[in-house]
Amino acid sequence: MISSEIASQLNFEDNGSKIVLFVIDGVGGLPLPETGLTELETAKTPNLDKLVAKGITGMTIPIAPGVTPGSGVAHLALFGYDPLKYAIGRGAVAAYGVGLDMDEGNVAVRINFAGYSPDGAVLDRRAGRLATEKNEKLCELLREIELPGVEFIMEAVLDYRSVVIFKGDNLHAHLTDSDPQATGENIFPREVKALDPTAERMAEIARTFIKKANEILREGARDIAPLPDDQHIGILTRGYAGKPHLPQMQDLYGLKKMEAIATYPDYRGVARLAGMDVVYDGHELETEFDRLEDCLEERDFIFFHVKKTDSAGEDGDFDRKVHLLEEMDKLVPRLEALKPDVIAIAGDHSTPATFKAHSWHPVPFALISEWCRPDGVEVFSEAACKRGTLGRFQAAEVMLYALGHAQRIAKFGA
Amino acid sequence: MISSEIASQLNFEDNGSKIVLFVIDGVGGLPLPETGLTELETAKTPNLDKLVAKGITGMTIPIAPGVTPGSGVAHLALFGYDPLKYAIGRGAVAAYGVGLDMDEGNVAVRINFAGYSPDGAVLDRRAGRLATEKNEKLCELLREIELPGVEFIMEAVLDYRSVVIFKGDNLHAHLTDSDPQATGENIFPREVKALDPTAERMAEIARTFIKKANEILREGARDIAPLPDDQHIGILTRGYAGKPHLPQMQDLYGLKKMEAIATYPDYRGVARLAGMDVVYDGHELETEFDRLEDCLEERDFIFFHVKKTDSAGEDGDFDRKVHLLEEMDKLVPRLEALKPDVIAIAGDHSTPATFKAHSWHPVPFALISEWCRPDGVEVFSEAACKRGTLGRFQAAEVMLYALGHAQRIAKFGA
Repeated sequence: MISSEIASQLNFEDNGSKIVLFVIDGVGGLPLPETGLTELETAKTPNLDKLVAKGITGMTIPIAPGVTPGSGVAHLALFGYDPLKYAIGRGAVAAYGVGLDMDEGNVAVRINFAGYSPDGAVLDRRAGRLATEKNEKLCELLREIELPGVEFIMEAVLDYRSVVIFKGDNLHAHLTDSDPQATGENIFPREVKALDPTAERMAEIARTFIKKANEILREGARDIAPLPDDQHIGILTRGYAGKPHLPQMQDLYGLKKMEAIATYPDYRGVARLAGMDVVYDGHELETEFDRLEDCLEERDFIFFHVKKTDSAGEDGDFDRKVHLLEEMDKLVPRLEALKPDVIAIAGDHSTPATFKAHSWHPVPFALISEWCRPDGVEVFSEAACKRGTLGRFQAAEVMLYALGHAQRIAKFGA
Repeated sequence: MISSEIASQLNFEDNGSKIVLFVIDGVGGLPLPETGLTELETAKTPNLDKLVAKGITGMTIPIAPGVTPGSGVAHLALFGYDPLKYAIGRGAVAAYGVGLDMDEGNVAVRINFAGYSPDGAVLDRRAGRLATEKNEKLCELLREIELPGVEFIMEAVLDYRSVVIFKGDNLHAHLTDSDPQATGENIFPREVKALDPTAERMAEIARTFIKKANEILREGARDIAPLPDDQHIGILTRGYAGKPHLPQMQDLYGLKKMEAIATYPDYRGVARLAGMDVVYDGHELETEFDRLEDCLEERDFIFFHVKKTDSAGEDGDFDRKVHLLEEMDKLVPRLEALKPDVIAIAGDHSTPATFKAHSWHPVPFALISEWCRPDGVEVFSEAACKRGTLGRFQAAEVMLYALGHAQRIAKFGA
């Protein structure tokens, strides 16, 4: 079931209860052949386990059986949206992630600063993992570009990523990416093309922007961010997107004061698009907990995001993922001490270290509230949670469980 | 979820991985009161169990809770189609099962050679389980029939079953069957009637065909297939059907080289309708495995069908079904040795020997791949698989699980 679709038939009560949706990115794993244990099964997480023992557990299917999700769409599912219905372009997520808003008719796009060979092949899609401060300086250079009849806003996102919003008449986002999503001596950026005739004007503007940006950066970036050998910096564009139209979680669920606490801009972006406020702008799990402690009093819903577990999984670093889970576990008592009415512990998807990528495998889930019927599962792991009372269920159902246990859903029917 | 419906929103990658969908017809059972064990729980199947221990398990619901399926529709569900949406007439399944194709506007119908009493009552719907060679001779006789403005093709299917495709202008399949689906001194074939006015012409043609066929067979069949007592052979018609329009599995799932290995024509027919090739035309499980070994190299998807377990269940022969499962188990190492990327072991439905018929009970299922998160189930049985990680799920989801574990589904969303 899809929470946002059921929600339209329900009434909600604002009883002052508080929900924390605690998302551990890429938390699900696969067993290490030597031990037969996954990352979660290997990690010592006594605090998490103690919390989970008071609640109910299960395994979420992020999108559909066998389907590996991107992070954005997987979070939309946890927020209760039909992930097959609300695809949101990367450009829009990036724009909202740095606190920009879009107007109707704007087009946003994600930019990578990349390392080009002398003849323009893409050798490094991340320009040596450019630091954010250097990224900001490059954005400053590019703000000088003039485009006929079009204004644009450009902001650094994080590391080598930035975002541009184009503003003008008659702009349409239905364009192909220039990012070839590969690197090599023979891999060149693709020409941006319109996918339908209404987008021809925007395609021309994008091509002009890219050309001018690359001209400026070829020499201009050399002092700011020198690259090895003969490489020079250019841009790649990805995920042209118009202003998204997501129903707002306030309207769907009767929640009033929602906040997202996340270290990565994209998660802040998805949360803002769903209607949450973003105040926290730090980068460390500990300071995320500080913000949680500061703001829970004034909030009724908090989405709390733990990022690094996913990165460790993508890097194939089993031990680091285990270590990060254990470090996180030490902070869990700070969450529990706040006594929110509902704690939902979820993952957006699995990122098994042995698989080195997001995967389709179901994800451990637990919900803790005074009104749970505890299911005897006393460990937060794949093997334990699959025996839980919730069984295997859609991530898009999580919001209904959370709101229900928070007693925010009014009795249905006479 | 319905695999074919989700698939339309997904992208697929042809990574060369190989999937074997191994279907044991009617595999699910019910416990014998004396032992409390089902057929699968009674049978010794060490090879199957060893294989299943490496994978994930669950129980499939063929169509919907409580709904007993026919074999055709139950296979469509396993192939990922919505079984409530794609009903395919028996005539078309039979036609495709013997390698015939239909054109737009053709009407196919399944024929039974039956034993009639002197005054035309249906005493035996199978004409003493007529042998296929005799069936072929009877078809030859009936090919002499002339129908005004209509051509037809007639082919023996198996045993007492044959099929006719009518070809001509203005033919519509919306007709009632002549087969009364019962036998007795007072049970007569029914008159074929049009279910809507457009089918009046076809109804008239069908009635003429039946009349002429019965006239020819009354004396003409006597030497070919003598029946006991006073009985003589006539035909019964069942499942008038136009050309089916199933989306092809190639288009749905990005699979390119699909093959069905089945001993019974109807399963070949359903598979051909879904887009699979059929090369194997043998009748024994051992030679099915020979074909599997021969063709897996050049295929990316194989549907492998084990038939006899279902027949034993329908005959109420518990011990024979147990024996057939044990015989099949001896061949399982030949499947495992081929190391397909994904093995899905499924049943189309249950056929409990105590029930002597297809039933609605969920069916044990297992999926084995390198990328499984094993669930601790080490036996392929109803009692074991119901504890598996997949829980109770729709048969129409099986294709998504198989494609996902074969890494053929592209990451969804940014």
